[in-house]
Amino acid sequence: MRVLVTGAAGFIATNLIPRLLERGEEVFGVDNFFLGKRAYIEPFLSDKRFHFEEFDLLDLDRVVKLLEKARPDLVWHLAANSDISYGTKYTDFDLKGGTIVTYNVLEAMRRVGTKQIIFSSSGAIYGEPTVMPTPENYGPLFPISLYAATKVACETLMTAFAHGYDIRCWMYRFGNVVGPNSTHGAIHDFVLRLRENPRELTVLGDGTQAKPYVYIDDCLEGMEFGYNKAKELVNCYNLAVDDQTTVTEIAEWTIETMGIDRRKVELKYTGGSRGWRGDVPQVQLDTRRMTQLGWTPKLSSRESVRRTIREVAEQFRNGPLT
Amino acid sequence: MRVLVTGAAGFIATNLIPRLLERGEEVFGVDNFFLGKRAYIEPFLSDKRFHFEEFDLLDLDRVVKLLEKARPDLVWHLAANSDISYGTKYTDFDLKGGTIVTYNVLEAMRRVGTKQIIFSSSGAIYGEPTVMPTPENYGPLFPISLYAATKVACETLMTAFAHGYDIRCWMYRFGNVVGPNSTHGAIHDFVLRLRENPRELTVLGDGTQAKPYVYIDDCLEGMEFGYNKAKELVNCYNLAVDDQTTVTEIAEWTIETMGIDRRKVELKYTGGSRGWRGDVPQVQLDTRRMTQLGWTPKLSSRESVRRTIREVAEQFRNGPLT
Repeated sequence: MRVLVTGAAGFIATNLIPRLLERGEEVFGVDNFFLGKRAYIEPFLSDKRFHFEEFDLLDLDRVVKLLEKARPDLVWHLAANSDISYGTKYTDFDLKGGTIVTYNVLEAMRRVGTKQIIFSSSGAIYGEPTVMPTPENYGPLFPISLYAATKVACETLMTAFAHGYDIRCWMYRFGNVVGPNSTHGAIHDFVLRLRENPRELTVLGDGTQAKPYVYIDDCLEGMEFGYNKAKELVNCYNLAVDDQTTVTEIAEWTIETMGIDRRKVELKYTGGSRGWRGDVPQVQLDTRRMTQLGWTPKLSSRESVRRTIREVAEQFRNGPLT
Repeated sequence: MRVLVTGAAGFIATNLIPRLLERGEEVFGVDNFFLGKRAYIEPFLSDKRFHFEEFDLLDLDRVVKLLEKARPDLVWHLAANSDISYGTKYTDFDLKGGTIVTYNVLEAMRRVGTKQIIFSSSGAIYGEPTVMPTPENYGPLFPISLYAATKVACETLMTAFAHGYDIRCWMYRFGNVVGPNSTHGAIHDFVLRLRENPRELTVLGDGTQAKPYVYIDDCLEGMEFGYNKAKELVNCYNLAVDDQTTVTEIAEWTIETMGIDRRKVELKYTGGSRGWRGDVPQVQLDTRRMTQLGWTPKLSSRESVRRTIREVAEQFRNGPLT
C-alpha cells in the first residue's frame, strides 16, 4: 500500500512511520518542521521506502503535486497545531495550520482521486460537555478554544468531502496521547523544566485538571483497528482510556522518576481550574463504541503516563531534541 | 446603537436594514456584491445614518479598519454564500466566503473590542439527522455539503471567540428563509424561469424535498427577540416553522400565482431524492427552544411560501434585479 503521512516529523507520525515501514508499505511524508523535529524523523530517512518532503501544506499546489507523485491509497492526516495554548496567542494559527491545511489535503485528494483518510481529531471538540463520559453523538458542539474549533471544522470538511466526493474518512477524537517523540504537553514540559531547575516546578492551573492519557502504541493500534474494521463512509470514534490522571500526579511522578528529592522541589501553581483559557479542565470520553468494535487499550492512563515519563526523561537526558 | 451589517446588499440584510434605520440606529454596511444586489441596497444609500462600503471581507486589514471606524456595539454577520449548490462546483468557495471571512470578522471584533455578534447559521449543519424534528443539541454533526461544513466551522469560531475573548454570540440555525429581495432559491429560480419560458419548468430532484420555509419578517423578529431575551455567552437556536413545503408545491403555486395555465406547463424533474449532491431532502427543525423563549412565527411554511411567490413575481415582473 502507498501511504501519505502529513505532519511526518511530529509526535504521532514518527511513532507511526516505523510501523508502516516494517509492514513493507511505501511511505510518503511531509512536514514543515514547525512543531515536528528533524531528530525524530532522521532514523527513517535512509529507508528506501520512505520519501520525505519539507514544505508547508498551506501551499495547495505543492500538496496536489505531492499527491500526484505519491498516488497514495490512504492519507494519515496528522499535521496540526497540537499545542493548544499556542492558538490563544495567534488567533489565525489553528485556522491556517488546521482548517485550511485540511481543506488543501482533502482538495488534493479529490483532484488526484485518493479515497481514504485517517484524521486525528480531539476530545476537546466537546467543549465543556454536560454529559461525562462524553459519547460521540454529544451535542451541541460548542468548543471553547480555537484549537478545538478547528478540529470541528476539519471534521466537517471530512464529512462534506466524504459525501460530495466519496472520500472515506476515519476520525478519532483523542484523549491526551503520550509517548516518546513528544513535542509539547505536561510530561514534556515538566521533564525539560526539572532538568533545568530541579528546585522548582511551575504547574499551570491548580493541578486538579484531569484527562485520560492514552499511550501512543495503543493510540496507533486503535486507529489501525478502526481503519480495518469500520467501513462506513464516515467513521468517527472517541479514542481514549477510561481512567484519568491529574496534572499534579504527573508533576509528582515526574519528580520521582527523575530521582529528584521531592522535599527539595517547590511546586508553584499558577492557580485557577484551567491550565490556560480554553483548556477543558475535566475530560472523560465514552469509549464504548471502540470497545464494541472490538478494541481496548492495553495501558491505563496511569500506566501510560508513568511509562511516558520514563521514556521522555531518558530521551531528553541531554536536553531537548531539535 | 451602532450596528455593522455584513452581506449588507444580500437578502436578509436588505430586509433588516430598514428596520434598524427606522429605529434610529446608526448602520454600517459592507458587501462585495458577489450575491448581494445594488438594486436592493439603493433605497438606503441616501439615508444619512446608513454608511456603506464595498469590499471583500477576505481582506482582514479592511475589516479591521471598518470596525475601527464604525465602532459597532453589535455585528449582524450575514455575509455568506447562501447558494449551497455553488459550493459543490468551487470547493474553496465556502471555506473562503464563510469560514475565513467569519474568522476575519471575529478577529476584527477582538482587536477593536466589539462584544456582540448575531450570526446566520443553518439547519443544514445537522446533515441527515436520525432525529426529526431535529433539536439544537443533536449530534454528531456530520454535514453533507461544504456549505453546511462551513456553517459549523463558523459556529465553532463563534464559541471559541466567545470563551476566549468575551464576545457574546447569537447563532440561529435557519430553515429556508424566504421573502422579497431574494438572491437564489426555488421561488427565485421558478419565477425567473417561468418568466423566460412559461411552457416548461425544470425541478431539481423528484420534487418531494420538503423544508420548513420561514418568512423573512418572522426570521428577523425571531433573531431580534432572541438577541433581546437570551443572554448566555453562547446563544444558539433553531429558527424555523413547524410545517414543511415541498418543491413540487412551490412549483405548482408559482405557476398558479403567475397566472399561467397549468395544463400548458411541463414540469421536468431532474430525478433523485435530492436537489443536488449535498442537499438534505427532508428538513424538520425542533423549534421548541425558541417557543419556550417566548417567540413563535406568524406565518406557516405554506403562508410564507405563497406570500413570497406573490412578492417575488411582482418584484421580478420586469426581469431580475441587479
